[in-house]
Amino acid sequence: MQVGTEVAFKLDITDVFVKEATLVMYQDDYQNYQEQQLVYQYDTQDFKTQIQLQQPGLYFYYFKIVYLADNTEKTCYYGSFAQGGWGQIYQQVQDVQTYQLTCFKQPARTPKWYQEGIFYQIFPDRFANGNPHGEINSPKKNSFLYATQEDDPYYIVNKKGEIVRWDFFGGNFKGIMQKIPYLKKLGVTGIYLNPIFEASSNHRYDTSDYLKIDAMLGTQADFEELLSQLHAADIRVILDGVFNHVGQNSRYFNARQLYGPQEGATQNLQSPYYSWFDFEKYPTKYASWWGISDLPTIKKDCLAYQNFIAGTAKTSVLSYWNQFQIDGWRLDVVDELTPAFVHKIRQNLAQYPEKVLLGEVWEDASNKMAYGQRRDYIQGDNLHGVMNYPLRQAILDIFSNDVNLADVCQRMMSLRENYPWDFYLNSLNNLGTHDTVRIKTALQNNQAKLKLAFLLLFILPGVPCLYYGDEVGLTGGKDPDNRKFYPWGREDHDLLAEVQSLSLRRQQESVLRTGDLCLYNTEHLILIGRYQAQKAQVYVINPTEKTVQDEQTLWSYHDELQLAPLLKEKLQDIKLAPYEYQVLEFRV
Amino acid sequence: MQVGTEVAFKLDITDVFVKEATLVMYQDDYQNYQEQQLVYQYDTQDFKTQIQLQQPGLYFYYFKIVYLADNTEKTCYYGSFAQGGWGQIYQQVQDVQTYQLTCFKQPARTPKWYQEGIFYQIFPDRFANGNPHGEINSPKKNSFLYATQEDDPYYIVNKKGEIVRWDFFGGNFKGIMQKIPYLKKLGVTGIYLNPIFEASSNHRYDTSDYLKIDAMLGTQADFEELLSQLHAADIRVILDGVFNHVGQNSRYFNARQLYGPQEGATQNLQSPYYSWFDFEKYPTKYASWWGISDLPTIKKDCLAYQNFIAGTAKTSVLSYWNQFQIDGWRLDVVDELTPAFVHKIRQNLAQYPEKVLLGEVWEDASNKMAYGQRRDYIQGDNLHGVMNYPLRQAILDIFSNDVNLADVCQRMMSLRENYPWDFYLNSLNNLGTHDTVRIKTALQNNQAKLKLAFLLLFILPGVPCLYYGDEVGLTGGKDPDNRKFYPWGREDHDLLAEVQSLSLRRQQESVLRTGDLCLYNTEHLILIGRYQAQKAQVYVINPTEKTVQDEQTLWSYHDELQLAPLLKEKLQDIKLAPYEYQVLEFRV
Repeated sequence: MQVGTEVAFKLDITDVFVKEATLVMYQDDYQNYQEQQLVYQYDTQDFKTQIQLQQPGLYFYYFKIVYLADNTEKTCYYGSFAQGGWGQIYQQVQDVQTYQLTCFKQPARTPKWYQEGIFYQIFPDRFANGNPHGEINSPKKNSFLYATQEDDPYYIVNKKGEIVRWDFFGGNFKGIMQKIPYLKKLGVTGIYLNPIFEASSNHRYDTSDYLKIDAMLGTQADFEELLSQLHAADIRVILDGVFNHVGQNSRYFNARQLYGPQEGATQNLQSPYYSWFDFEKYPTKYASWWGISDLPTIKKDCLAYQNFIAGTAKTSVLSYWNQFQIDGWRLDVVDELTPAFVHKIRQNLAQYPEKVLLGEVWEDASNKMAYGQRRDYIQGDNLHGVMNYPLRQAILDIFSNDVNLADVCQRMMSLRENYPWDFYLNSLNNLGTHDTVRIKTALQNNQAKLKLAFLLLFILPGVPCLYYGDEVGLTGGKDPDNRKFYPWGREDHDLLAEVQSLSLRRQQESVLRTGDLCLYNTEHLILIGRYQAQKAQVYVINPTEKTVQDEQTLWSYHDELQLAPLLKEKLQDIKLAPYEYQVLEFRV
Repeated sequence: MQVGTEVAFKLDITDVFVKEATLVMYQDDYQNYQEQQLVYQYDTQDFKTQIQLQQPGLYFYYFKIVYLADNTEKTCYYGSFAQGGWGQIYQQVQDVQTYQLTCFKQPARTPKWYQEGIFYQIFPDRFANGNPHGEINSPKKNSFLYATQEDDPYYIVNKKGEIVRWDFFGGNFKGIMQKIPYLKKLGVTGIYLNPIFEASSNHRYDTSDYLKIDAMLGTQADFEELLSQLHAADIRVILDGVFNHVGQNSRYFNARQLYGPQEGATQNLQSPYYSWFDFEKYPTKYASWWGISDLPTIKKDCLAYQNFIAGTAKTSVLSYWNQFQIDGWRLDVVDELTPAFVHKIRQNLAQYPEKVLLGEVWEDASNKMAYGQRRDYIQGDNLHGVMNYPLRQAILDIFSNDVNLADVCQRMMSLRENYPWDFYLNSLNNLGTHDTVRIKTALQNNQAKLKLAFLLLFILPGVPCLYYGDEVGLTGGKDPDNRKFYPWGREDHDLLAEVQSLSLRRQQESVLRTGDLCLYNTEHLILIGRYQAQKAQVYVINPTEKTVQDEQTLWSYHDELQLAPLLKEKLQDIKLAPYEYQVLEFRV
């Protein structure tokens, strides 16, 4: 709810004589709480109260009920069952799980190109090489190039497991330009580009120079040409902002003097970059990301660095790149940045209402804690949305025999409930990224499951984002295996056709882009509904390897339209072959 | 001496009264021996006898001398001091070191292009890439390419130290063709090419298919074009014959089915190649070269294999390649092949008197033992010559403070004495190969020493063979560091000019090509002489970092022309700055 909203709380209690029903509500992360008695409503026969949300933040609440039983006064509590939805009665107050109520400052409004778009994630070294003879632009000294684009990625490490030489396929901007027609056929409206600034590695999360395009990808002119061609094709671009650490061989840290003998924190105590880093023993021992010495971390509260990245000066990193036709940023490991820094970044973008700010958050972003601090990503003046890894897990769980569908539905619905509506729709949904196992591999190469996973991606709320190559059946276990080169000429055309058709469906059905979510499950089926003003579409999906019919029980989650009875009736006639689905439409 | 020669033995004894002088001579590797009394010659006042060498092989001899001293009959022995030359007196027979006398069947005559030539060793992956855009021909799947030609070679190994991916620079035949003018300027008349047949690795000692050119180097047509262009430029080509082992991924062994599921010894017990290998446990445990599982060895006496390689059929490996314009073979690890196999190889070449057969032998090839057998390389019906690694060591030792010059001279002279003359001149002399530290690195990057080392290479008997890049100052420690790419555009032109000038000198001075060797040293100087019918040239060399003059003592080795007194006189006027040398010429 937006701040200022008056929220009504209702309790429908039957079977017992209630003496007193109280709303117990915490705010400021359990620092403060209030109790407010609910009043019995004779007309509706329920208990009710309302509270105006005065301050943004998370509210956690439950109900205390004093009732008479066997002429004795007893107390029980009603709180959350799992992550939202129907709750349950608790006898002991210490057992109660609270409900979360998210109160946000303002909606995280984003332009239509984003919120209703279809995204494609490109790991630039691995997508396409647009040079006429397959040349590699400006190969880095003492690095290795893969001999063929079919090679399996491999980390070249020493006995300690440290990377001693970086490995490149040599994808570049010209390659992306050449593939614009391909992206158009997929319905892509936006690209999430993994890092592109000068760096030593193939992933470029070890930034060497924030103000330079990595020469292996192309020149600054190539970059501008790429932006220009993409925009001409109505495709937007979100860059990866890696602002928690830099490369040890960066201009800023310069551990091995690649930027000369005077530059950088390790070479010169007078360096303007010295204050960025946290040296335990100068210059060899320092704080680094996950202890990876290749990635010295920036001091959390270093204002000099924050201004360098996001200051209002035209020379700051964000200001510099924002002047080109880029359309937003995805903040790498955003939970490791201080809240103040993230706000500064958002403020820097304030003059560009068309640009989007996303964050890498792996959990529910509404109640994420990091470094002992509740993060306020969903407030509307912060991130616009986050990468939706919980959804990916839910999709995988739908196909797992070990997880029951009710649990999956509850988890999916809890995001819907905890996120402000816009923030929810702004989720960048994925079936996989450069940091996960490839979806085809995660689904044991099962083509039927794979197609259903894409269906789920395209019908669920949030912005679908295809990880390059997933749509043509690229396989791969964990990093680096999930970073193979796009298999040009070896595509799975059957799968690609399916993905193109799902993409088209989403482009044609506004309900799939902006409709609300209703969810149901039977013992074996999951039913995913989207609805808006006049229409509801419910996908009845059999995610199992057996034919399913005669499902008896239907559980529902957020069934605002009360479609459950209708669906139950329809289910009597539905028989679904393994991995089959059926679409039901309702006029509402 | 050639078999049948009558050899005269002379002893010049003064100061004692000799009662009896006897030649004690062993043959058949000490299996048999004979004694023959020397007869005092009144005219020349020395003891003498002669023996006609009836059988080829090595003879080892010393002298037993019975003399009177203080009216007592005493016995002493005269044998070798070190490796030849002046001997010494021994009191105890068990201490005596014998002299070696090499008796060979026939001279190892080679054509002038070889014996008077200048060679250049090319490791094909590392010399030059002749493709217009630097493309790599047919890169091998799951291998790595160096990003730049300046990269340092690196073995990509797992924790056990096993190579998991091969690394390539991508040199090829077209590259060699492009560099023919460069080779001409160096005076090169022959190339020793490291292996070029289909293989998995960059060194190609792991042959995959003996009858195919490795596609990374070019096509069969490219190879023939290379031969044609080289011959048109009067440059000959010696191939590397690797006939002791094959690659585990060869067509013949086929450990990982790269050649299909039925081919090869490991896939099929009926394979024609099964009998080549020695399986301890089929198919996973087998004899391999130095225990390197990548290189299964051929059974020593496998006739099927020997015929496959060297049989008279036109389809045998040697017969197949001999039909093209190749000019000889260098046999890899020849000491691991059976003598019979080596003879078979030589016989295969019998119809091509212009083709040369060399061997990889690291020691004195005249008395090399391997697998408990004396090798008969120097017999004249076997190898024509060997790679002269002992000479390389001698050259390094000349610059070492730890080795005295007399010792070096003795070693150098012992090869001259032990080898038949033609075999000696056929030595392929080197300052380094793909199996040694680079000469510049071995000489601690000392440019003055380096230039002198090249001088020595060009003035000593044997065919100088430059290891690609040494002539322009390429550095490198042991393998793989000694296999950097030729530094095109980054050559040491000062050094190159010196090498070109030395090469020219050798081309102009026949005495340097075919003259005999005389050797001398003083305390600090080494004097290397070459002489023939009318002329002697003596190089007086200061290999030290100090100025040298007034050298008092001169030691001589094989001073057939008795130049020592003349040289001693000249030395009085000679003052040599550090690493300086002077050439003295004598009419004889």
